[in-house]
Amino acid sequence: MIRLVDFGGKGRHRFSPYAWRTKLALAHLGLDYETSEITFLDKSALAGVSDHTQAPVLILGGDVVTDSWEIALYMHATFPAKVPLFADDGQIAFAAYLNAWVPRVLYPIILPMIAVDVITKILPEEQTHYRKTREARLGCSLEEAALNRTALTQDLSAHLEPMRAVLAQSPFLNGTEPGYSDYILGALFLWIRGTSPFQPLCAHDPVAGWRARLFDRYSDLIMATDGYEW
Amino acid sequence: MIRLVDFGGKGRHRFSPYAWRTKLALAHLGLDYETSEITFLDKSALAGVSDHTQAPVLILGGDVVTDSWEIALYMHATFPAKVPLFADDGQIAFAAYLNAWVPRVLYPIILPMIAVDVITKILPEEQTHYRKTREARLGCSLEEAALNRTALTQDLSAHLEPMRAVLAQSPFLNGTEPGYSDYILGALFLWIRGTSPFQPLCAHDPVAGWRARLFDRYSDLIMATDGYEW
Repeated sequence: MIRLVDFGGKGRHRFSPYAWRTKLALAHLGLDYETSEITFLDKSALAGVSDHTQAPVLILGGDVVTDSWEIALYMHATFPAKVPLFADDGQIAFAAYLNAWVPRVLYPIILPMIAVDVITKILPEEQTHYRKTREARLGCSLEEAALNRTALTQDLSAHLEPMRAVLAQSPFLNGTEPGYSDYILGALFLWIRGTSPFQPLCAHDPVAGWRARLFDRYSDLIMATDGYEW
Repeated sequence: MIRLVDFGGKGRHRFSPYAWRTKLALAHLGLDYETSEITFLDKSALAGVSDHTQAPVLILGGDVVTDSWEIALYMHATFPAKVPLFADDGQIAFAAYLNAWVPRVLYPIILPMIAVDVITKILPEEQTHYRKTREARLGCSLEEAALNRTALTQDLSAHLEPMRAVLAQSPFLNGTEPGYSDYILGALFLWIRGTSPFQPLCAHDPVAGWRARLFDRYSDLIMATDGYEW
């Protein structure tokens, strides 16, 4: 049995964007798995398993795989599928690019938008830790950062322009079927959906259409967790 | 016979990054072609051919194809090859992304670095036009813009980080062999090579190693034009 170490929030809030990539990939491949959770301050689910302290971690037999990108390559190699996780080698190159680009360029835009909401979805005893570490990163209070969020949507939209060029050619970044390139970007929107009612995309944006197609494809998985609908 | 409308500079300086994409693609496919040139102010090579006023334009029989991206897709469809211009559909998606991303993100960093050198490689009677239009875009004189170029190399290097993630997996962005994804980024470095002695990459940067591999592969084509070696 595959075991996945996810990141746990309040109730059924599961919003780690890195863990979402892996959960979408597991669903893509139709694999069953058992889940346990770490949190910001409680890493006991990884005791005796790995010195790694961040979700996701995938465990299968004697294999302990950390880092969502390594997990994706491991799953692609270990579980051949009719519709593979990466449509072809070109998609592995594109996804490797996105794996480096999305956290570097998009996460810093999204964090100030939603951090003020994220904090309400984590365990009460961890909120002080979250506020302290995120405010240090943002250089201002979570509340001050959120004042700027409507302006940040323009910045986000500009950075998404190359995605629209790809989506003008095919319904998913991976082609006719969704694949890991979609899960890297989709996980960003699951981080938002799981924490914040803020809607950073215009309804007519082709990226919003793609998001709806992707969420629809994985609605059972997504709706089993807490979040906001839009 | 294929006809290519390129952009002409002084002597054998040919530095249009969009035209270089097409010339690399033509060389990739081993196709012969005749070349004519437009310049900033002289579009006579396109008279009676197209209302389009920018290089490259590709003409084959009754087909007149404008826009380097459309030309690439046209060549990919028209000239099947053992080593195709795009290794697979995933590479078409990745290249579509880069086609939108490189001019949007990298060109505005490169222009201020090299514009002060570019102007010396264009026809004397067009230099006033170039200075006026580029200084309007830059918001300062070409000379002032260049004062900032060493600082801009750090900005460039940060934006190239996702390229390094791809190049950690394969020698070219397209995989084991170069392809159109490489030509989109490579053309940027041919714009620099054809105009400026400024070297924006550190020698140990994996992107510099990739650039050397690509330039070496197309050295006959590149060395037939004027430029700087580094």
